[in-house]
Amino acid sequence: MAKSPTEPVSDPNEEIMRATYRALREHGYADLTIQRIADEYGKSTAAIHYHYDTKEDLLAAFLDYVLDRFKDTVHEVETTDPERRLDKLLDKLLVEPEDHQDLLVAILEMRSQAPYKDRFSDRFRQNDEYVRYLLRTVIDQGIQDGVFVDVDTEHVARALMTIVDGARTRAVVLDEDCALTTARRTADEYVTSVLLND
Amino acid sequence: MAKSPTEPVSDPNEEIMRATYRALREHGYADLTIQRIADEYGKSTAAIHYHYDTKEDLLAAFLDYVLDRFKDTVHEVETTDPERRLDKLLDKLLVEPEDHQDLLVAILEMRSQAPYKDRFSDRFRQNDEYVRYLLRTVIDQGIQDGVFVDVDTEHVARALMTIVDGARTRAVVLDEDCALTTARRTADEYVTSVLLND
Repeated sequence: MAKSPTEPVSDPNEEIMRATYRALREHGYADLTIQRIADEYGKSTAAIHYHYDTKEDLLAAFLDYVLDRFKDTVHEVETTDPERRLDKLLDKLLVEPEDHQDLLVAILEMRSQAPYKDRFSDRFRQNDEYVRYLLRTVIDQGIQDGVFVDVDTEHVARALMTIVDGARTRAVVLDEDCALTTARRTADEYVTSVLLND
Repeated sequence: MAKSPTEPVSDPNEEIMRATYRALREHGYADLTIQRIADEYGKSTAAIHYHYDTKEDLLAAFLDYVLDRFKDTVHEVETTDPERRLDKLLDKLLVEPEDHQDLLVAILEMRSQAPYKDRFSDRFRQNDEYVRYLLRTVIDQGIQDGVFVDVDTEHVARALMTIVDGARTRAVVLDEDCALTTARRTADEYVTSVLLND
């Protein structure tokens, strides 16, 4: 994420999103209430309901917010060299700040509810499609430039996202410190063997 | 899983486990109640509470049950040839019967609760350690036999489990038909490049 959610802001929507972020990290998804978000917001629940009818509305907006912030960090990758760009992209996907473990926990809870909540599954699917699009684009560029082997880019993008999602799940379920570093190394091994010309 | 949970049995514990399996597949974890399990069991909630004090006790036992059944299917892999044995093991991990999608959904819900429930996280960790032990054993055997490259077996086992966990998460969250086949192909590519001598 680009900015710390504790920085001062004035946009009420932004403030509610940051309050939701803090409440989710503290209480998790299952125990999240509008009251707890309001406590973090420092205003009444009515002030939140003015913007969001239900908790599900608010959480759908929160997923959009998290996705937008992720997009911002991806846009910070400025190199156009395909190999370095793919490397930086995998860093963004797999080297998260330590203090995001609590958010990973809450996000996995929301992911597990995707089969029951269309608005959650829509957002997770859009997010996944967006990241796979970024991966395909950089791989296609590498193939055009002759630095990557001519592969099935859609499969390689899905393979890399499988490694990313596995790491995120393992970091939460097994509370493994090494989940992300293992996955980063695995992604490197995969990229080296499948994409790089010897 | 070795046997269909709809086959007739006489052991009450086994019957309660099968009822839990059916109730979880129908209602999911969040909406699971002892009443709903009792409905599937065809007896009163008291008949279940005679064996299990709380829903969490019962679900911890259910995770043991699922893990034991998984162990049974793994023991069916009879070949001792390391390359074929690893292949069959990955099949067991990544080629599940289609009708297990509902169970995958319920299991992901339970996995997302691991940070809050020690008895869940203990079992998921034990399960993961057991499967990694199996993977390390077959990889070590292949190294001894000279068919696999001398690798960091612990890392390779974790890498393969990252792919497995990614597939299971994606199958649920994105409802992707191709999640398991993509992961099976990715695991093959990984094994070929990292383990096999050219």
